[in-house]
Amino acid sequence: MTPFPPIDAPDSDAAEAALARQLTLTKPAGALGRLEDLSVWVASCQGACPPTQFDRPRVVVFAGDHGVTAAGVSAFPSEVTAQMVANFAAGGAAINVLAGLAGATVRVVDIAVDCDAPLSPEVGAHKVRRGSGNIAVADALSPEETVAAVEAGRCIADQEVDSGADLLIAGDMGIGNTTAATTLIAVLTDSEPVAIVGRGTGVDDGGWARKTAAIRDAMYRARGMSADPLGLLRVCGGADLAAVAGFLAQAAVRRTPVLLDGVVVTAAALVAERMAPGAQRWWRAGHRSTEPAHSLALQRLQLEPIVDLGMRLGEGTGAVVALSVVRAAVATLAEMATFGEASVNDGGAGP
Amino acid sequence: MTPFPPIDAPDSDAAEAALARQLTLTKPAGALGRLEDLSVWVASCQGACPPTQFDRPRVVVFAGDHGVTAAGVSAFPSEVTAQMVANFAAGGAAINVLAGLAGATVRVVDIAVDCDAPLSPEVGAHKVRRGSGNIAVADALSPEETVAAVEAGRCIADQEVDSGADLLIAGDMGIGNTTAATTLIAVLTDSEPVAIVGRGTGVDDGGWARKTAAIRDAMYRARGMSADPLGLLRVCGGADLAAVAGFLAQAAVRRTPVLLDGVVVTAAALVAERMAPGAQRWWRAGHRSTEPAHSLALQRLQLEPIVDLGMRLGEGTGAVVALSVVRAAVATLAEMATFGEASVNDGGAGP
Repeated sequence: MTPFPPIDAPDSDAAEAALARQLTLTKPAGALGRLEDLSVWVASCQGACPPTQFDRPRVVVFAGDHGVTAAGVSAFPSEVTAQMVANFAAGGAAINVLAGLAGATVRVVDIAVDCDAPLSPEVGAHKVRRGSGNIAVADALSPEETVAAVEAGRCIADQEVDSGADLLIAGDMGIGNTTAATTLIAVLTDSEPVAIVGRGTGVDDGGWARKTAAIRDAMYRARGMSADPLGLLRVCGGADLAAVAGFLAQAAVRRTPVLLDGVVVTAAALVAERMAPGAQRWWRAGHRSTEPAHSLALQRLQLEPIVDLGMRLGEGTGAVVALSVVRAAVATLAEMATFGEASVNDGGAGP
Repeated sequence: MTPFPPIDAPDSDAAEAALARQLTLTKPAGALGRLEDLSVWVASCQGACPPTQFDRPRVVVFAGDHGVTAAGVSAFPSEVTAQMVANFAAGGAAINVLAGLAGATVRVVDIAVDCDAPLSPEVGAHKVRRGSGNIAVADALSPEETVAAVEAGRCIADQEVDSGADLLIAGDMGIGNTTAATTLIAVLTDSEPVAIVGRGTGVDDGGWARKTAAIRDAMYRARGMSADPLGLLRVCGGADLAAVAGFLAQAAVRRTPVLLDGVVVTAAALVAERMAPGAQRWWRAGHRSTEPAHSLALQRLQLEPIVDLGMRLGEGTGAVVALSVVRAAVATLAEMATFGEASVNDGGAGP
């Protein structure tokens, strides 16, 4: 695989200008809280102050199945992955509805759905294989498939930025994918699975125990590999996770801001940061899901979620809800009147 | 004052229908977390499932000055209140920008700004007096002014609902208003001021100590009055707080959902719930501000904020940011495909 180039930091001059401009707006300094921080981040990513409102936020949902479902780790059968890909394409899923409301568009990509033929040539253009391997007993991918999946994510990020996307969100769809994601997070944070395994789509106690056992087995197979991101994706990840990792890292290469979604995307983000150190400066955490491993991964990335709404759906839904907050941040910095413009006494806070 | 009529509960049949419909949508049960709860609440307020997206959310900013600023409790001079009223009218304030983004419109009302003439006849139509009294040493209002202010809020809520508003947000603007609001919350929750006094617009340590002393003095003047909401508004509240209380209670009378904003509006909500028991079923907490008294008031109302972004501006800004989340809740319940419509296996979760 072609290594990722060194990742630039977002523009510090624009960040300084944004911080200075915040002090001139008709409100007490700091009174907009995290909206102010987010506005500074967006300005630094765009390299401009004031920043401009996002014109083409883009959600890419990476769909893939996981052989580990054979171990009984999920409340839903694997066939649901392909059915949901069709639902995304038809516009009926939560991510379609929420993205529409937030002014974002949705693309769905079949990276490793366990079906004979992809839904369409466009959806299947980057398909790596039919379902990733059962990580409890075997590697998820071959070395070649691992590289192909990461390269697919890179290519998709390039396509989207080249098409004008000015903010990227990765979503996930795949029965069993929280098992692989939790394994990656457990390995990269050296955690005991029993402490961080969640219920995914809502597995019962027996399923939770089987999921925890599968993660432990997969972690054993991945022992000693925490410094090898490609190796981890191959042994205990999957094609969808590899593609998301490539997508997130390439977004940073392309200086495009990203809102992270839930546990699956954030697991891939942990791997992406190993592949492209510094990429995380181009990411913010959209939300905190109820999956315990998600909070651990966010903590490791030193990212504080924008919203915390008890969501656990994936698809990019948490990130898209957060997009409305980021838009609010941009709007205030770009559009509010200054003390001078509005003839408001600045209480001594101004320059 | 005409007493408020008994407050109806939102429609429980619509709530049950919304809960049942949530189980049919193409996602695991509960996976949208608080979006699901909010969607059920909106359905029950509208008396219909699926609910319809808000067509005319309306923000009313209640502006008023407070004589307690003479005690040096704020970082900004009182003249800023009138200057900001002009800024609201001109569209340059944070609430204008954020409401526009969330599809809400803004009305500003001069209830008790300390200026000679209101900005315009419309803005001043409900003006009660020039600034409320210094609650550290005297009553905020006369008995007649107290009733006039509550009635002004009721009248404004009626006007807005009659004009088609389908969701109401009260905002506040007034240098010194967090001092009065914190006093009301301290009295109604029997709290020590030192534990719950915040820094408002950003007062320094000396100002914070003066603010705490003023609140203690006002609480002493209000001792034994916690069961008398009108008396509290008169002795240690203010015309703006009284108007907001009337507005919030009347919204419930008119079966119109409300998103609460920060510490000032939520202090008025505590009083309104005393004036019109059960009104709080028509309210949700938009956000958690950094003012300690706000969290206490929310806890007393058993309301969990939708977002927690470190905001402390008032004006309705926190509630308007939360409006985007409530819109997302409505959209998912109203627009997502069901398992049957999308031919997705429901994993045994369906009816």
